[in-house]
Amino acid sequence: MSAVDPRLSINQATIKYADLATALRVTADAGIQAIGLWREPVNEVGLDIAARMLSDSGLRFTTHCRGGFFTLPAGAERDAALDDNRRAIEETATLAAAGAEGSTAVLVLVAGGLPEGSRDLIGARERVRDAIGVLAPEAKAAGVTLAIEPLHPMFASDRAVVSTLGQALDIAADFEPEVVGAAVDTFHIWWDPQVLEQIARAGREGRIATYQVCDWKTPLPSDVLLSRHYTGDGVIDFGSLTRAVIATGYDRDIEVEIFNADIWADAPSNVVRRTADTFAAAVSPHLG
Amino acid sequence: MSAVDPRLSINQATIKYADLATALRVTADAGIQAIGLWREPVNEVGLDIAARMLSDSGLRFTTHCRGGFFTLPAGAERDAALDDNRRAIEETATLAAAGAEGSTAVLVLVAGGLPEGSRDLIGARERVRDAIGVLAPEAKAAGVTLAIEPLHPMFASDRAVVSTLGQALDIAADFEPEVVGAAVDTFHIWWDPQVLEQIARAGREGRIATYQVCDWKTPLPSDVLLSRHYTGDGVIDFGSLTRAVIATGYDRDIEVEIFNADIWADAPSNVVRRTADTFAAAVSPHLG
Repeated sequence: MSAVDPRLSINQATIKYADLATALRVTADAGIQAIGLWREPVNEVGLDIAARMLSDSGLRFTTHCRGGFFTLPAGAERDAALDDNRRAIEETATLAAAGAEGSTAVLVLVAGGLPEGSRDLIGARERVRDAIGVLAPEAKAAGVTLAIEPLHPMFASDRAVVSTLGQALDIAADFEPEVVGAAVDTFHIWWDPQVLEQIARAGREGRIATYQVCDWKTPLPSDVLLSRHYTGDGVIDFGSLTRAVIATGYDRDIEVEIFNADIWADAPSNVVRRTADTFAAAVSPHLG
Repeated sequence: MSAVDPRLSINQATIKYADLATALRVTADAGIQAIGLWREPVNEVGLDIAARMLSDSGLRFTTHCRGGFFTLPAGAERDAALDDNRRAIEETATLAAAGAEGSTAVLVLVAGGLPEGSRDLIGARERVRDAIGVLAPEAKAAGVTLAIEPLHPMFASDRAVVSTLGQALDIAADFEPEVVGAAVDTFHIWWDPQVLEQIARAGREGRIATYQVCDWKTPLPSDVLLSRHYTGDGVIDFGSLTRAVIATGYDRDIEVEIFNADIWADAPSNVVRRTADTFAAAVSPHLG
C-alpha cells in the first residue's frame, strides 16, 4: 500500500452504491483528503444535513455532479431542466462552503444528447450554449464555476453533444473563465489528436475547472457507460496528459471517477484503497 | 420499392456471409451498378478469377477493403503487414481494371490500434505515417489511391489510431492527392464538431477518395463494431454531410457499408434491396 496522494479526490460515482455517510467515512478513513459528490445521495439526506456531514468529515469538496441536459427545445421540459440546474448551483455553493479549506465550487455539466427523434446535432449544440448563457449569471452570483464536460464521442447521440475539449472551450469562450470552464477527463479525451494542444489552450484561457482521471480498456462492456477502469489498468498515457495539465499551472485536486460494474460490486473501503494505490502509481509520478 | 440510385455502391461487408459470386449476383440483380469488395472473399476464389467474375458482372468497382494495420514497431510482423498491403495494392489495381467504366482504384486503410501493452498513441500514429510513406510510391506506380479511414474514437485503442478526418488529412498532406486520400464514412465522423469544415478541406485538397454511408443508433450492441445501420434508421443527418461532400465536387459512387449481426442474418437479396431503398430515401435527395 502506497502513501495516499494529497491531491487525490474520490468522485462518489466510483463507490456508487455507498450512501453519503459511507462515502465520506471510507474516503476519510483511507487517508484521502477530498471528495466529489453526486446530487442523488446528497438529496437523499437533504442539502443542509449533507453539508453538515461533509463539514464533519474534514474533507475538501471538489465537484458536484452533475447538471446539464440542455439540448431540449423550448418548453416545459427545458424549463424544468434549467430549474434543476439552478438547484444544482445552489447545492454546489453550499457544499463548497461546507468542505474543508481548499474546496472548489465546481458544477460538472453534461450537455445532453439529441432529443428523441431529432437529427439536428448543430441545433442541439446551440441550445447547450443558450442554456449556459441563462445559467451563467446565476452561477456567478453563487460563486460557482460551471464545468462543461466533453464526453467521449460514443456518447454524442444519447448523452452529450459536446464531444471534444476544443468544442467545450469554444462554448466557454463566450463567458468569464471563473464562471464557465471545462472538465478535463482522461477517459473522454485521451484519443483526441488535438488533446495536448487543447489542454494547453484550456490552461491559457483559465478554463480547467477540474481534472479527472480513469482508464480506457477494450473490449468495451455491453453497457459502454461502464467501461471506466482504475488508472493503469488500461491504455491511457497518464504521463503525457497529466504533465500537460500540470504545465498549465493547474493546482487543484484530481478526481478519480470510475463507472464499472465490477468495481461497484466491491466493498467501498476496498475501492477507495485501490483507487489511492493505482493513482499513486499511475498519476502521482507526473505531478511534479 | 424506389428507383435504385445510379451512384449507390454496395460494400460487400454489408452482405458479409455472401461469397463473391452471390455478392455480385444479388447486387446486379437489384439494379445496383457498383460494388466495393473485401479481400477475403476475393482471395477465396483467387484474384484472377475474381477479376473475371467482376468483369462479367458488369458492375463498377469502387473500393477494396482493406489494407493498413500499420502501428507495429519495426520487425517481422510489421514487414509482413507491409507485404500484405503490397498485395492489396495489386489486387486493387487488378479489380479496378476489371470493373466497368467508372471504376476507381481505391484501397481503404485502417490504421491499426495500439500494439499489445503499448500506451504510446503518438508513436503509433507516427508509424502509420511511416508505413504510408513506404507504400505510397508503390501505390502510385500501380495507379491506386490509398484512402486513410478515420475510425470512430471508440476504436482508437484496438483498431485505428486515426480518429478524425482532420487527422487523416494531416497525414495525407505529405503525399500527392491522387496517391493518398481519405475515406469519408458518416458512421465514424458524424459526431465531429469540425466535420463540415474538414469535409470542405478534404475536397479543397482533393482527398475524398470515397464517401461511405451508414447510420448510428444507440444503445450500441455488445460488440460495438456491429453498431452500423441502414441509412435513416438512426440519428445521422445525411443531408448536411452529403451536401457537404457533393459541394466539394465529389462525383464518384457512394458506398453503403454496414456491419450489423441482424442485417448479416438476413438474405443478401433482401439486404441489397433494403439498402437501395433506404439510400434512395435518406441520401439520394441530397445528391443535387
